[in-house]
Amino acid sequence: MNKSNNIDKPKKILALSGGVGGAKLALGLAKVLAPEQLTIVANTADDFTHLGLTISPDLDTVMYTLADLNNKELGWGLANESWQAMDAMSALGGDTWFRLGDRDLATHLVRSQQLAAGESLSSVTTYLCHRLGVKHTLLPMTDDPVRTRVKTAGGELAFQEYFVREQCRPAVQGFYFAGIDSAQPQPQWLDLLQSEDLAAIIICPSNPFVSVDPMLQLPQVRAAMKASAAPVIAVSPIVAGLAIKGPAAKMMTELAIPATATAVAAYYGDLLDGFVLDQSDQSLQTEIDQLGLATKVVPTIMKTLDDRIDLATAVLSFADQLFTDSIAGKH
Amino acid sequence: MNKSNNIDKPKKILALSGGVGGAKLALGLAKVLAPEQLTIVANTADDFTHLGLTISPDLDTVMYTLADLNNKELGWGLANESWQAMDAMSALGGDTWFRLGDRDLATHLVRSQQLAAGESLSSVTTYLCHRLGVKHTLLPMTDDPVRTRVKTAGGELAFQEYFVREQCRPAVQGFYFAGIDSAQPQPQWLDLLQSEDLAAIIICPSNPFVSVDPMLQLPQVRAAMKASAAPVIAVSPIVAGLAIKGPAAKMMTELAIPATATAVAAYYGDLLDGFVLDQSDQSLQTEIDQLGLATKVVPTIMKTLDDRIDLATAVLSFADQLFTDSIAGKH
Repeated sequence: MNKSNNIDKPKKILALSGGVGGAKLALGLAKVLAPEQLTIVANTADDFTHLGLTISPDLDTVMYTLADLNNKELGWGLANESWQAMDAMSALGGDTWFRLGDRDLATHLVRSQQLAAGESLSSVTTYLCHRLGVKHTLLPMTDDPVRTRVKTAGGELAFQEYFVREQCRPAVQGFYFAGIDSAQPQPQWLDLLQSEDLAAIIICPSNPFVSVDPMLQLPQVRAAMKASAAPVIAVSPIVAGLAIKGPAAKMMTELAIPATATAVAAYYGDLLDGFVLDQSDQSLQTEIDQLGLATKVVPTIMKTLDDRIDLATAVLSFADQLFTDSIAGKH
Repeated sequence: MNKSNNIDKPKKILALSGGVGGAKLALGLAKVLAPEQLTIVANTADDFTHLGLTISPDLDTVMYTLADLNNKELGWGLANESWQAMDAMSALGGDTWFRLGDRDLATHLVRSQQLAAGESLSSVTTYLCHRLGVKHTLLPMTDDPVRTRVKTAGGELAFQEYFVREQCRPAVQGFYFAGIDSAQPQPQWLDLLQSEDLAAIIICPSNPFVSVDPMLQLPQVRAAMKASAAPVIAVSPIVAGLAIKGPAAKMMTELAIPATATAVAAYYGDLLDGFVLDQSDQSLQTEIDQLGLATKVVPTIMKTLDDRIDLATAVLSFADQLFTDSIAGKH
């Protein structure tokens, strides 16, 4: 947040999201913000080519969630899904470790076909969102290929090999994002980061290392976020020492970082203006305050739609307060 | 048939097949011949790229039929098929005129992936047949792309656009097979055509213009068939002026060719040694004889598995007789 003196209250909200956890908050935000107010940027470093198809797991999770088509039991993919193609694939000796549902396959077929025809991932995403009735703006972090590589004792793995095929079993030693130095951040996103209309940048409760870092490490992004007048607020994906979803806590332990909300706040460092932590971590509030961050303690575990809306409302209110304080010179 | 003096009786049978009709006789042949005796070559000029997938309709129809996985109600595709991907594709505004079942999609995904990895269509076909338990040899006519183009009053159409999307409605003015002049016939097929072990070349009851002609027009094929000591026998796809399946009769009318078994025999011309016509066309036997062909009249309509086996047995017996006559110098 750049403490400039912007009197007119900006109206636009930017959310950075990985998959499931991020998508939950993105849905909450979409329920309380008009379509023109909310832009969600999703990580694409999890994307991969599988069975000849270009698959964008985080984009699809957010898209399906916003369209209310997501599979709430599995936590990924589409609701009311069937698995005939995977069953037949198994009979043909094809790869089935990444489960693609029959209905989900249509998404990947359309995306792959449009990409092969020269469309950008942004354009394909806009098209798919339109067809599925998603009104808020969803953007890939970049139209260029960026691919998370997971360093483990047994060698390097592509992210989905680590995450799905190996079920996050290998201990991680680090990550890098192949292609990131030459990738361009999605232009609409960069414009929004530089816009005076931006009122908040929300880092959703997604994995800091493999969901959020690829977005932050894209050229120009971190600098644009710091230069923005809008407060940057992260919602902790770690609650009471555990990741609500996914391997974030396991990774932190393996990377010799304490699996705590405090460590997440410290990891994002001076990029943040505010940090939202769960009520069960209230005892950490003082030490996070001491990192120089404004903090807000609320329930962050989103089981119901109301939970998502309540958290979105709390985060937006926190952002509003930080923005007002900033104009008043309190930070 | 080259009337050479081959005393040892050859043992191998070659069948040339298009889709459904050809596959029925191929199945009959497979039921009475050992795997090492029968090679089926399928037309690939119907192949096309759709939704980014490489689809080989005739190869798949023969493969699914030999594996007893074919959909007997639809006449194409797999039995016990579901259509979730196409349903979702429709919601996404994708092309659905060519119906790809969920289980069938796995075949196209595996094929497309293996082709993209540099495998030949022959190699992919062998792999898929192995996985599906097909024991007899099935070969694509070529590993090179050959594509049937349909000339109509309204312009040229790709074959599947004509056949599936337009449901054969446009009147045809002719056909050509893009790529055929530079395509190599599948090497194993060419070897078999030149082998002294070959005992019969059977042109299955498939469409002469769009299923059989692409195979015959490949470089070297027609000459090799004529040079072979094995008799070349066609089974009429036209019965009582009608095509049992598909647009053959309609095409003949549009091309100003009488829709008769006689016209089919004449169309294949001096390539044939023998011609098998349906009992309902017995009245045409004399005029077909007068074309200089040996003829055999049998029931050719294959409704049951026994029908397929009976026709296969009759064709093989006819071939055996022609071969013996040839050695005895009767033809």
